Amino acid sequence: MNLKPLKALSAAVLLLGIFSGSAFAAEKTGMQTQKPIVIQEQGAFSAGGSVITTPGTFDPTKIADPKGQTLHGDHASVFYQIPAKARKYPLVFLHGAGQSARTWQTTPDGREGFQNIFLRRNYSVYLIDQPRRGQAGRSTVAGTISATTDDQMWFDMFRLGEWPNFFSGVQFPKDDESLNQYFRQMTPNTAAYDSDVVSNALTAALDKIGPSILVTHSQGGGPGWLTAMKSKNVKAVVAYEPGSQFVFPEGEVPEDMPSGTGTLKGYPVPLKDFMQLTKMPIIVYYGDNIPTEISDNPGQDNWRVRLKMARIWADTINRHGGDATLVHLPEVGIYGNTHFMFSDLNNVQIADLLSKWLKDKGLD
Amino acid sequence: MNLKPLKALSAAVLLLGIFSGSAFAAEKTGMQTQKPIVIQEQGAFSAGGSVITTPGTFDPTKIADPKGQTLHGDHASVFYQIPAKARKYPLVFLHGAGQSARTWQTTPDGREGFQNIFLRRNYSVYLIDQPRRGQAGRSTVAGTISATTDDQMWFDMFRLGEWPNFFSGVQFPKDDESLNQYFRQMTPNTAAYDSDVVSNALTAALDKIGPSILVTHSQGGGPGWLTAMKSKNVKAVVAYEPGSQFVFPEGEVPEDMPSGTGTLKGYPVPLKDFMQLTKMPIIVYYGDNIPTEISDNPGQDNWRVRLKMARIWADTINRHGGDATLVHLPEVGIYGNTHFMFSDLNNVQIADLLSKWLKDKGLD
Repeated sequence: MNLKPLKALSAAVLLLGIFSGSAFAAEKTGMQTQKPIVIQEQGAFSAGGSVITTPGTFDPTKIADPKGQTLHGDHASVFYQIPAKARKYPLVFLHGAGQSARTWQTTPDGREGFQNIFLRRNYSVYLIDQPRRGQAGRSTVAGTISATTDDQMWFDMFRLGEWPNFFSGVQFPKDDESLNQYFRQMTPNTAAYDSDVVSNALTAALDKIGPSILVTHSQGGGPGWLTAMKSKNVKAVVAYEPGSQFVFPEGEVPEDMPSGTGTLKGYPVPLKDFMQLTKMPIIVYYGDNIPTEISDNPGQDNWRVRLKMARIWADTINRHGGDATLVHLPEVGIYGNTHFMFSDLNNVQIADLLSKWLKDKGLD
Repeated sequence: MNLKPLKALSAAVLLLGIFSGSAFAAEKTGMQTQKPIVIQEQGAFSAGGSVITTPGTFDPTKIADPKGQTLHGDHASVFYQIPAKARKYPLVFLHGAGQSARTWQTTPDGREGFQNIFLRRNYSVYLIDQPRRGQAGRSTVAGTISATTDDQMWFDMFRLGEWPNFFSGVQFPKDDESLNQYFRQMTPNTAAYDSDVVSNALTAALDKIGPSILVTHSQGGGPGWLTAMKSKNVKAVVAYEPGSQFVFPEGEVPEDMPSGTGTLKGYPVPLKDFMQLTKMPIIVYYGDNIPTEISDNPGQDNWRVRLKMARIWADTINRHGGDATLVHLPEVGIYGNTHFMFSDLNNVQIADLLSKWLKDKGLD
């Protein structure tokens, strides 16, 4: 696949975006230079979840009384699009903490996200809202949502810079509206995060979707590994900056790693389960501005230990006969990427890396 | 526009669905008989909302401390698709209580919803998640979400029947998986419902979208009227079973209407604002199984007064020189429709009604 025209087009779209003055206008202008996307079918469904029941008998004259009533919750919500002439394996996208399917859609500055980019490359795309998040908000357990002000924490945690300053050369647009859109793509947990609930629902989604390539981001990495161990339908895993729940065989868990945001611990699983992860190609990507020495900025420091543990984790997979690749982007000459490299300014370049890897592994 | 081929195709899709045995399979099978959808552009953005700030100074070494930090919330989240050769006015869809953009997507039994149906009819579609719902869950006020069992309440309220019995001839599929999908398309408020917050965000969305036809459902009806009074971009309103917040000129509010779910009150607004609603065509639809006499089933009884007030409301619009049409489907020979007529078994017929009205009003 010759990606050069796409790169040139992306540069043109970027230029149009810069001069249009608004994210939405940038998108409208930019996209009109692109060919239409031909969708063979698209739709939405829920997958997995559970049902709770209050004891008693439902009284149709007292419908607000919970007695004898059920609640369906803890499912995933899935929006999918299948292009004409789709490739064999769909890409199934799972967002990270505080995010939803929006993660993979339009970028904060109005360019195309991985949803459109990979549709244009003839992949079917399935965008997940995990249980207790976004359009899958109905849960079998109660929840509380604070309105704690924390935008600046995320600015630092997601490595845009150290508030209010962007990192020099960061791959993030510096206009106010892009940052506004970025903050507003967040959406809270409607009940407690539970990686078992998430991986069960994702496994149920894959039962419907069939053999797929699982693409996770950040917090989604953990349930991603659990799903790859549970489901026969995971043919490969692509993890963007997995941040926690690195699985290791019992007895091979590395030492705890203290950091500015707490202590990162390996997540022990039976060796038999772990071995599932050696049966598929896996690639893990990390971006730029991750310190190698202890930083007094917790937003940066937590990535120091996460990258460190990810390296040990990839080595462990490979020592057991697996095929795990860890790409630290600055080591391959790609600089300035944030925690959201798939929507960064160079996201077409990031997509090209994935396309090439999928081709190399015979997955395209 | 000759809709007969579409109707025939819909019947074929239904038959395929019945024999396939699963909602998802029905969809996969059904849709392959349809032509691809050609999308000129698609994407997502947030619109409107507000920002709160905690007093103090942000300390980058204590990122979890809310001092000096902001929170962006109370925006709408919008997913849109613009087909090739789009008609002049987009359809902007606002869901009802406990729902999200999912309302307009695939039906519970896996057929195409209004999103796809109207894309195929060359309308651009904009699907809203209103502030504090779905992918627009981040709010500037805190919220609590109970896990109260209430599926049976909604079964009755949404007029599928009187649990566990479906109404005779109801336009809803009677298999378990369809009901499972139907319950799971619900998603809760992440903070208190506020029709001003919703209509402000919707007005901001329309500032970006431009002149549009607003399509609301149920609870969305209220903020729909508020938006039509605030925004110059509402060219018409289509309201499916608006359930509350019927606006009347101050001094012309009808008497309160007690019902099994409480007392329905008219919503007074200044005459000057109300007159905005007389400047655009409006159509309101209600389905079947709405009692005319007091019912001891509150799920049914509440629709008795809502339909009654809607009739007075439409008459008030027209008395002031407007163009409001109320269609009670059984009165035009269409039977069995629930509160979700746009995803009922006969939703293509319901879409045909809308297409015809849009054509009659010169809006297509």
